[in-house]
Amino acid sequence: MQAADLIQLGQQAQDAASILAQLDNAAKNRGLMAMADALIAHTPEILAANAQDVDAAAGSKFLDRLTLTEARIQDMATGLRQLASLQDPTAKADQAWRNEAGLLIIQQRVPLGVVGIIYEARPNVTADAAGLTLKSGNAVILRGGKEALRSNMAVVNVLQAALKSVDLPELAVQLVTDPSHEIANQMMHLNGYIDVLIPRGGAGLIQAVVKNATVPVIETGAGNCHIYVDKAADLQMAIDITVNAKVQRPSVCNAAEKLLIHQDVAEAFLPAIAKALQDHGVELRGDARACAIVSDMIPATDADWDTEYNDLIMAVKVVDSETEAIKHINAHNTKHSEAIITENYAASQQFLRQIDAACVYVNASTRFTDGFEFGFGAEIGISTQKLHARGPMGLAQLTTIKYQILGDGQVRA
Amino acid sequence: MQAADLIQLGQQAQDAASILAQLDNAAKNRGLMAMADALIAHTPEILAANAQDVDAAAGSKFLDRLTLTEARIQDMATGLRQLASLQDPTAKADQAWRNEAGLLIIQQRVPLGVVGIIYEARPNVTADAAGLTLKSGNAVILRGGKEALRSNMAVVNVLQAALKSVDLPELAVQLVTDPSHEIANQMMHLNGYIDVLIPRGGAGLIQAVVKNATVPVIETGAGNCHIYVDKAADLQMAIDITVNAKVQRPSVCNAAEKLLIHQDVAEAFLPAIAKALQDHGVELRGDARACAIVSDMIPATDADWDTEYNDLIMAVKVVDSETEAIKHINAHNTKHSEAIITENYAASQQFLRQIDAACVYVNASTRFTDGFEFGFGAEIGISTQKLHARGPMGLAQLTTIKYQILGDGQVRA
Repeated sequence: MQAADLIQLGQQAQDAASILAQLDNAAKNRGLMAMADALIAHTPEILAANAQDVDAAAGSKFLDRLTLTEARIQDMATGLRQLASLQDPTAKADQAWRNEAGLLIIQQRVPLGVVGIIYEARPNVTADAAGLTLKSGNAVILRGGKEALRSNMAVVNVLQAALKSVDLPELAVQLVTDPSHEIANQMMHLNGYIDVLIPRGGAGLIQAVVKNATVPVIETGAGNCHIYVDKAADLQMAIDITVNAKVQRPSVCNAAEKLLIHQDVAEAFLPAIAKALQDHGVELRGDARACAIVSDMIPATDADWDTEYNDLIMAVKVVDSETEAIKHINAHNTKHSEAIITENYAASQQFLRQIDAACVYVNASTRFTDGFEFGFGAEIGISTQKLHARGPMGLAQLTTIKYQILGDGQVRA
Repeated sequence: MQAADLIQLGQQAQDAASILAQLDNAAKNRGLMAMADALIAHTPEILAANAQDVDAAAGSKFLDRLTLTEARIQDMATGLRQLASLQDPTAKADQAWRNEAGLLIIQQRVPLGVVGIIYEARPNVTADAAGLTLKSGNAVILRGGKEALRSNMAVVNVLQAALKSVDLPELAVQLVTDPSHEIANQMMHLNGYIDVLIPRGGAGLIQAVVKNATVPVIETGAGNCHIYVDKAADLQMAIDITVNAKVQRPSVCNAAEKLLIHQDVAEAFLPAIAKALQDHGVELRGDARACAIVSDMIPATDADWDTEYNDLIMAVKVVDSETEAIKHINAHNTKHSEAIITENYAASQQFLRQIDAACVYVNASTRFTDGFEFGFGAEIGISTQKLHARGPMGLAQLTTIKYQILGDGQVRA
């Protein structure tokens, strides 16, 4: 695959996008249902291709996420069918008004155009991304991890045939089949063909895309999330929320990684939360003051405060004040999700106002930062940047606006 | 100036931004009024610095835009005072809802943080950008053209002193004083310090930033805008709008550059519009069919269809159908502003739906694509990209959201 081929892919995606942008919701839903049915009907071929990928990756750390099963393919199909039940994000205008000259200005939602997704060896993302982009009226160019190439090719073949079978443009979904870094790099510079690039995967992948791409990128995923237990906290609530945020699913980006405790409640709270977390197998790493209260913690190093463990590990720090907690969080967080536990009104307001993050919680678990939990019905990722989308991204975040302006002869004075 | 200095500027801007984000509207307005007063009070120093720039640039094409006068400084001050009269774009939430778990999710508007502006030799942009970013609660790092360096330093010194005089962070407004391309390039890669970079200037500058920057960019300004005169057009209206869109201010991005005419009205319309435009000094360049009707047009070349003249030049093409017009526009436009002149309902709807541009007009001049004409009360630029902001950007487009989430102990099941 050459750079010229990638431009061809880009041109084909643009052509498909111009058709997709004109489709009504019923047509897009027909595509989603056809894709879902086709995944089920072609499960044996997909599993056969996947088995080759799995064999080739024997012993790799990617093995679990790479492996497809009949149940996982059913989940992929179910995901597509659920998308069909959602509202069309382009079937609305945000607002409309008349300006001084009497023009009616309509701020209409429209698809972005062509979305690029760079991801790792998770073949389920292939169907998921294809569904989200189709429902929002976008064409997609997929570039998955090389370990999943045969699986992804099988899935994309099935999805393209399904689109064709219901008279939708099959090139709405395209796969970059060259696994080289060079082609990925060219994809990051495909300005004019790709409207937005969304990396999905680990911090290494995301930073590589953010640092290289000149195509607009939405940065997703990194989550060094904190729970701050204020001096006015309900301590039982603080235990319940901290345990939930840490252990309910430690591998994901909205899991809590750090626990900050106001000094006034540290003596009362720390032994109880340490026991609760340790009962769930959490390794605790404390600063000097925390270790002085609970002696069986590992001393935390400077690096701990900036590390997203994605594991059953939590670092604990005792702070003098809420102001110190906020300062620490803003210096070390990844702008994802932060929570305060407090019964004090002023403390809650200060935290909500001063923390710089996509999602700031009072008395709730950071685990709620999720498109489904927010009620969006879908999720393409969690944006940790400030441009275009911030926090959970559903279908609406895969759209932009177009001003449609209705006049009756107005000229500018 | 070294890269390390730029990082220091970035850190200082971040620190200022964290203070600005907490200011209420009254405090920001105090800053705007102080900046306006200071520009007036220090007009002599600013003019003296500007005179040095103007002397050094003698004979340059930048001279007009570079030159400040007492009246221009008064305009800069007036612009700042007008900003004070606008609503605070961060003093609102877009929406709020309760999710299934009973969390109240508030989608609060907040400042972006640190805005970088790279611009050419227009010292008035310095005050304008400082005002827009202050009002929206952002810190700004300015990098103007080297020809205006002394003027910009004088203006920034005055603005910083004004901010300090009303107890606002003076480093809310900072200037990159190293005019080298190397430093500009480093600014384009200042990820983690600059939240968004907005280039303001000609196509060359904007493309250099878009093609190089890894910091999120908002692409602005390029406008190869079309007027399509449908077969069902009111031809007098078509003349009025075309003349306005072409000649009212030909140097700006929302001026029309191309005229497409349906073949059914070409014989009737072309001689009249050609005369009207030529009476205003417009040079016409026609395709073969247009030249066959009006013989004193210059034959257009392929390059004409992609050229933004920013001058009293217009290329004219006769098309077989609206579909051909739309196809031509989508292939050659810069996604800025496009207009159809028609009395036919279906033709208007097809154009509104199928044209891919920030602003699509029926029966109005493209010259209305402007933050003030839209009623935003301000304008930082016109976005021709799809991410974050599209079309005229006012204060709202210099903000992002933060989800503030209020619970009473919710954990995720």
